[in-house]
Order: sequence, then structure tokens, then C-alpha cells
Amino acid sequence: MSWREFDLIKEFCGIPLADPSVLVGPGDDCAVLDIGGTKIVITTDLIQEGTDFLSAEVLPYRIGWKAIMISASDIAAMGCRPTHFVVASVLPAEATSEFLNGLWSGLYEAAARVGASVVGGDLSKGSLLSLTSTGLGTPYGTNPILRSTARAGDRIFVTGPLGGSILGKHLDFTARTDLASLLASNDLATSMIDVSDGLSGDLPHIARASGLGFLVHADRIPVSDDASRLAARTGKTPIEHALHDGEDFELVFTVVESQAERLAVLSCEAGLECFEIGEMKPAEHGMVLRTPLGDRQWETRSYEH
Amino acid sequence: MSWREFDLIKEFCGIPLADPSVLVGPGDDCAVLDIGGTKIVITTDLIQEGTDFLSAEVLPYRIGWKAIMISASDIAAMGCRPTHFVVASVLPAEATSEFLNGLWSGLYEAAARVGASVVGGDLSKGSLLSLTSTGLGTPYGTNPILRSTARAGDRIFVTGPLGGSILGKHLDFTARTDLASLLASNDLATSMIDVSDGLSGDLPHIARASGLGFLVHADRIPVSDDASRLAARTGKTPIEHALHDGEDFELVFTVVESQAERLAVLSCEAGLECFEIGEMKPAEHGMVLRTPLGDRQWETRSYEH
Repeated sequence: MSWREFDLIKEFCGIPLADPSVLVGPGDDCAVLDIGGTKIVITTDLIQEGTDFLSAEVLPYRIGWKAIMISASDIAAMGCRPTHFVVASVLPAEATSEFLNGLWSGLYEAAARVGASVVGGDLSKGSLLSLTSTGLGTPYGTNPILRSTARAGDRIFVTGPLGGSILGKHLDFTARTDLASLLASNDLATSMIDVSDGLSGDLPHIARASGLGFLVHADRIPVSDDASRLAARTGKTPIEHALHDGEDFELVFTVVESQAERLAVLSCEAGLECFEIGEMKPAEHGMVLRTPLGDRQWETRSYEH
Repeated sequence: MSWREFDLIKEFCGIPLADPSVLVGPGDDCAVLDIGGTKIVITTDLIQEGTDFLSAEVLPYRIGWKAIMISASDIAAMGCRPTHFVVASVLPAEATSEFLNGLWSGLYEAAARVGASVVGGDLSKGSLLSLTSTGLGTPYGTNPILRSTARAGDRIFVTGPLGGSILGKHLDFTARTDLASLLASNDLATSMIDVSDGLSGDLPHIARASGLGFLVHADRIPVSDDASRLAARTGKTPIEHALHDGEDFELVFTVVESQAERLAVLSCEAGLECFEIGEMKPAEHGMVLRTPLGDRQWETRSYEH
């Protein structure tokens, strides 16, 4: 079965339920729940040997770290603070105590790094290592920040340089709770998503969910050093890597134009950087990448490892 | 690595964290969290091809159903109402649309059956089907019901006949939210657990967590028809199957002696059955099974498929 079909199933399953406690169902970075009057976001993420890491080439600590941080990044992308994680693991019978200690340290230290706790889990034996992390969070501000609430004219920002994460960052990143907290506490972002499938894949999620188009300036996209290093090997350009590589786990968010200066001041005071890359446009404008050679229709390429 | 070592790791990881929002950490059926003043329980359970089901022999609907109900049973065992589930799946590339529709229907209908919603998930391709279900719940009563709060003299009850679940019930059970609701709403149970590893393995969890022993009357343990059918094949006795088979997903709970009659009245009114099988004793009494041939030390046998 192709990934396209998987996506169709996902969409099929995203049909909203007649459950008033589900404020936002599948289709955003997290679901948003109302439990006893408290707004809670929840996300679950599965990583497995071969697809997401090669345990022969990676420290187990980094695998545990990644499992937690992927979920933490989804929670940050909702403008929420991660609070608790549970982790279900399939562990190969040949895993050594040293390996498991590394794995567990990664899980626990990643959770602690974002101010959360690992509160439970499940273990099963199997041939391939996999970890499923489920994270809960609560809004830094009054409400979670969705994908669907950008408005035409909003400026588009990313929180850091993109591309080439396969060279190491995809296992060694920290969810951007710092900027999520700043944005949500100050009611600055009108929409937000994290870059897991690549900017070219993730920004259209905001556009479609909000019923908008956008214009992004290629020369304003911050390109990571790893994107350049990788480009030297692949023959692609660094900007192609910045656009299409996945697993940067930076945040992409939109800000009302009149708030852009306030964002600049507050982020500077906090010692945090954001990069303005374009603006949201009415849907009829389409999704456009402005390059030195002219405007191009936005192209989404799937991330492949 | 042996299961014993897995258990040691589990215990190692159960070291309580200095997080005041974690009211109960690993070691009970669910963790208990305080999020914004709301008490929430969370559990995660992983089932996989080979260990927990054989997809060649089982309807996909039943696999999805089981994934949700295992977590729902953990939530019921806390005296809580399941509210929301997320499910992460590893799906084999050869899974047909029909198979996936069955799987998804099982997930969604099981959640609906216990009054909850599936609010999100994650999908990955892999060689072996696995499903990790994470469930949230809230107390039917004021507080969740723990394993650690039984008292000497409390009567021990189970909610239904035990044994032989491998003949079908392990894929086709409904979490005992009915009795969990009755017990918790009426503040009847002093402790509770669900029978996932078998009565012989699970009742000692209550005893140890509560610092107690117990006396169970073998002839009061309700034996399922499947336990008898299975015994005819295995050469074991039906009571052995009722004691040691796992995955019955009935509840075992304790009730203060003076409340036993109230339980009888309320459960009868509700058309629900409970079976009194013994009583909790001080720790020095040990864990004892009374049989027609005399008292025996309680024996825990691991459930093996």
C-alpha cells in the first residue's frame, strides 16, 4: 500500500465525532480535549528501527531522546507545554542492559528537558526496536494554537535554519518549547505547525486548514549548515534541502502584520531568533515561492530517508 | 533477555519523580495525573502480531477491538471512565483496504462501546502489525481506585468467571466499565486491578502494594466454561486455568466487610454479578489458597500464550 492510501485512511479516520469533549480531532499536530474544564492536548508518535533510526549506528540515548522530542515538538506546535509522557516499546531480545539504560536515559532526560515527566509505559519483545511516545500538554496561553487560524496578510516565520537534519539533527534536536512559550504567552501566533515533513510539506497544511495561499521568498528561508554540507554530496542545492528535508522540528507560525514588531522585540529580549519568510495570501493567490528567477508554484516533495 | 529482566527495568523506571502533578506513577494500572486541578488517568498498551494475536486467524475488527479494550480495562480498573484514545499502528505493506477498514471499525466501535472517542493516531509501515493504544480517563467517583489501598479484613471479589480466554474471550471482551462505574460511584471498592496476567499473578499485586496477605477459597473462584473446555484439551484442571490464564479482563477488587451487603444489593439492582472469593489478611498471614485438600501457599504462574 502506498503512503497516499495511508493518508486517505488517516483522513477517513479524521471524521469529527459527535463528542463535545473533543475540541479539535485528528488533523492538527495534537488533538485538543476538554477534560473537566481543562484543555489538554494529546499526540502519539511511533518511531522504529530502519524507518526512523538505525540502532547499529546510533547511541540508544539518542533514540529515546528522539521518541520523546517528536511528541514534545507536536505539543510545542500547539502553543502548549508538554506535561506527561507514556512510552510503549518493542524491544529486541538481544538488547543489552547497557543499551536499555541508554534508551531509558534518553527518554527520561528528554522529558525533563522540556519540563515533563515519563509516567508509565508498556514493554513487549519483538524483532525490531520501536518506541511509541504519547504526550500530553496544556496551553501556555489561553488556548492551543491551531493550523487553521491563519489570516490573509499574516507574516510567516520559522524558528531556525532548515535542511540536512539527516546528518544528525533529526536525532539531537530539542523541541522549540522556548519559542512556543513566548508566542503563546504573548498571544503572538495566529497559527503554528512543526516542520516534520519539510517546510514544503508542512506550510501547505497551514494554508489548506486556514483556506489560504501564501508567498514565500526563497532567499529569506534560513538554510542550515547541514543543508549546505548535504548539498555538496547530493548535487541538490542547499535551498532544496531547506525546503524539502524533513525532521527539522523547527516551528512555522504566522503573526498578524501589526504584531511583527512586538515579536521582534520580545524574541530579541528573550535571546531567541525567528526568521520572516513570507506572508499568507487569499486562497486564489495560490501557494507561491518567489525565487530570483521568478515566481514558481509551490512544490511539495515527500521526505524520504 | 528474560521477562524477569524486563520487569526489573520496569521497576527501575518506576522510581517516583519529583513532579507534584504525578499523583501515582508507574506501578498501578494507570498513572494518575493532576492537570489543572483535574484528575486524569493514562495508560498505554501495545499488542503485536504473534504475541497477542495471529492476524491470519483473527478478524481485523477483533484486533482493533482488543487494542482499545485492553487500555479501557486498565482505566476501568482505576475506577475511571475512559474518555479518549490515540492509537499508533505499524501496518504491513500488504494490508488490504478491507483489512484496514476492519481494524479501524474495531478501534472506533470499541471506543464508542465504553463511551470514549478515538481522537488521533500515527501510522508507520513495517513487517509486523502492531497497535499501541493510549487511553485517558477520569474518575467515576472522587478519586481513582488504586492497588495499594486494600485493608486487612476486606472481602475480595471478582466480576466474572475466569480462565480459558485464549479460546476467544481475549479478543472479544468488553472492559468492565459497568462494574467500575457502580463501585466507584458508590465508593464501594478499597482497591482494584484487572485480570490481565491471571488471577494468580494479579491478586498479589494488590496484596504487595497494600502490604497485606490474603486467603482465597479455591472453590469460590468462578470458573468459566472456556476454562473447562480448555482443561479437557490440556490435561490441567479447570481451576488451574481459572487461576493462571491471563487476559480475562475481569476486575478483582476489595470491599470493606461492612459494605459487602450494600455491594450485593446495588449490584443485584444493576443486574451485575460479583463473586466473593476470599479476604485480605495481614502480611504475616501470607498469600494462601484454601483447597479441599488443605491450605496451600499461593502460586503465581506466568501466563504464556
